[in-house]
Amino acid sequence: MLDVCLLGTGGMMPLPYRWLTSLMTRCKGSDLLIDCGEGTQIALKIKGWSPKPIDHICFTHYHADHISGLPGLLLTMGNAERTEPLTLVGPKGLERVVGALRTIAPELPFSLKFIELTEARQQLQLGPYQVDAYRVDHNVTCYGYALSIPRTGRFDVERARAQQIPQKLWNRLQKGETIEEDGRIYTPQMVLGPDRKGLRVAYCTDTRPVPVIAEYAKDADLMICEGMYGEKDKTAKARAYKHMTVYEAAALARKADPKLLWLTHYSPSMTKPEMFMEEVREIFPRAKAARDGWSMELGFDEE
Amino acid sequence: MLDVCLLGTGGMMPLPYRWLTSLMTRCKGSDLLIDCGEGTQIALKIKGWSPKPIDHICFTHYHADHISGLPGLLLTMGNAERTEPLTLVGPKGLERVVGALRTIAPELPFSLKFIELTEARQQLQLGPYQVDAYRVDHNVTCYGYALSIPRTGRFDVERARAQQIPQKLWNRLQKGETIEEDGRIYTPQMVLGPDRKGLRVAYCTDTRPVPVIAEYAKDADLMICEGMYGEKDKTAKARAYKHMTVYEAAALARKADPKLLWLTHYSPSMTKPEMFMEEVREIFPRAKAARDGWSMELGFDEE
Repeated sequence: MLDVCLLGTGGMMPLPYRWLTSLMTRCKGSDLLIDCGEGTQIALKIKGWSPKPIDHICFTHYHADHISGLPGLLLTMGNAERTEPLTLVGPKGLERVVGALRTIAPELPFSLKFIELTEARQQLQLGPYQVDAYRVDHNVTCYGYALSIPRTGRFDVERARAQQIPQKLWNRLQKGETIEEDGRIYTPQMVLGPDRKGLRVAYCTDTRPVPVIAEYAKDADLMICEGMYGEKDKTAKARAYKHMTVYEAAALARKADPKLLWLTHYSPSMTKPEMFMEEVREIFPRAKAARDGWSMELGFDEE
Repeated sequence: MLDVCLLGTGGMMPLPYRWLTSLMTRCKGSDLLIDCGEGTQIALKIKGWSPKPIDHICFTHYHADHISGLPGLLLTMGNAERTEPLTLVGPKGLERVVGALRTIAPELPFSLKFIELTEARQQLQLGPYQVDAYRVDHNVTCYGYALSIPRTGRFDVERARAQQIPQKLWNRLQKGETIEEDGRIYTPQMVLGPDRKGLRVAYCTDTRPVPVIAEYAKDADLMICEGMYGEKDKTAKARAYKHMTVYEAAALARKADPKLLWLTHYSPSMTKPEMFMEEVREIFPRAKAARDGWSMELGFDEE
């Protein structure tokens, strides 16, 4: 239903064995990327996923490690003969920043559409993704993103029959269509039960641990959160540079209670994030120190 | 005397196992880089060379695969606490292009100096490097670079004694200093024989095979030249996109007669450049299909 791949887990600069942090998701043939640092297109190639079906790229902010790979990715998508428009989402300034970077990628066979975020919380529908963007707390304007795939209610055959809804319309109603036929209007609400639990992935990097992060990660299937530092003596540094420690990330997860927490965006100085995980798991047991290329297929619950 | 490392050998886009083409040289503590594509800073790290002592970056042209890694490299040099100015060299438009890319790398602890090339042939002295820039033939303005380390003549003890030059001045004269002492002027010419053969590396990518390339690679210690395609049926493509085949590169080398030819800037479609080398070596026997990270220490001839 929803494939996710954390293409990289690094922060600040790409390293020989650690790509910069970015997330790619696939759902119903429409792919979405969050952030695109130097080398993200290589990480994607290693994963074996194509850049061509990326319909949406969301940027958390415009520090180089989150956007420097964009010109190269756009050109590679062009070389793959993409012609469909691509939607870019990010904080105010998006069109100016991307325009500047396109100095070295001026010609593309597809058009770009820009959505600049201006509110503290904004909801967008991007293809199959319901995207919640929420402002977090970094030294420049920065957003976290929660991606949701909603799930409609169960089809209620009894109700459909009771209302004498022609059976040939059931499938279309189930898919959400409103239909007018023989002077009567049929709506999905007439035949669907209450919405069922959908899927949700919450993603944030480059921020202090603020409550809004836990709010949007509440009961998520997967919470992906920066954990830039593990050493206890780097707590002050995390505060000064507006990042967070793995313990702060775990404390957020404890409030949000997602099914799983993946830590990412490690400082280049943190070569072995696993070292700190025993203590992290005392705060939130379902925490993992993610590694480049980790992926997961999320499906709707059986019911 | 002169260390060279071909950090990558790819053209067009970085690949999982092939970095984009760029050359780094080290001489007398002053490092020089030619081109900086996406991932070049990672290739540098894999090689184990530091980005901090890079004093000069020369750009052949501004297609993304030759400059997209610049913002990240500049930030990494800043993180390494470089404070000395950095000189950038390239075709007209350099300051505009770099200015645009610095939208995502606005703050650096060192200054940038720009040298924009405007002539078909230009000679520059960049630290220990005598740099010849020469315009080649691509679909945008593009330059090749020849890096020379000149070597002064042998110190002639007989002549120094015959002219009664005080022995305490010999060392300074040998290093090229002109000295005034006790009303007399001493010049290096008074004690040095004719210039001896220095070192030269000639580098060009993204061009049709034009005679100027062979001219500047004449008798070079190392000629590095693009060989984008190997398949015979891609000759027309090479012509159309203003690149060259490995055979055209070898033919240039036959005219230039360098000690060694390294081919580079392979098309992503050319996964095994070695396949074509038997035929290439029939044209120029000292040709090699270079691989990422190949390096060489060039020293002055014994004499």
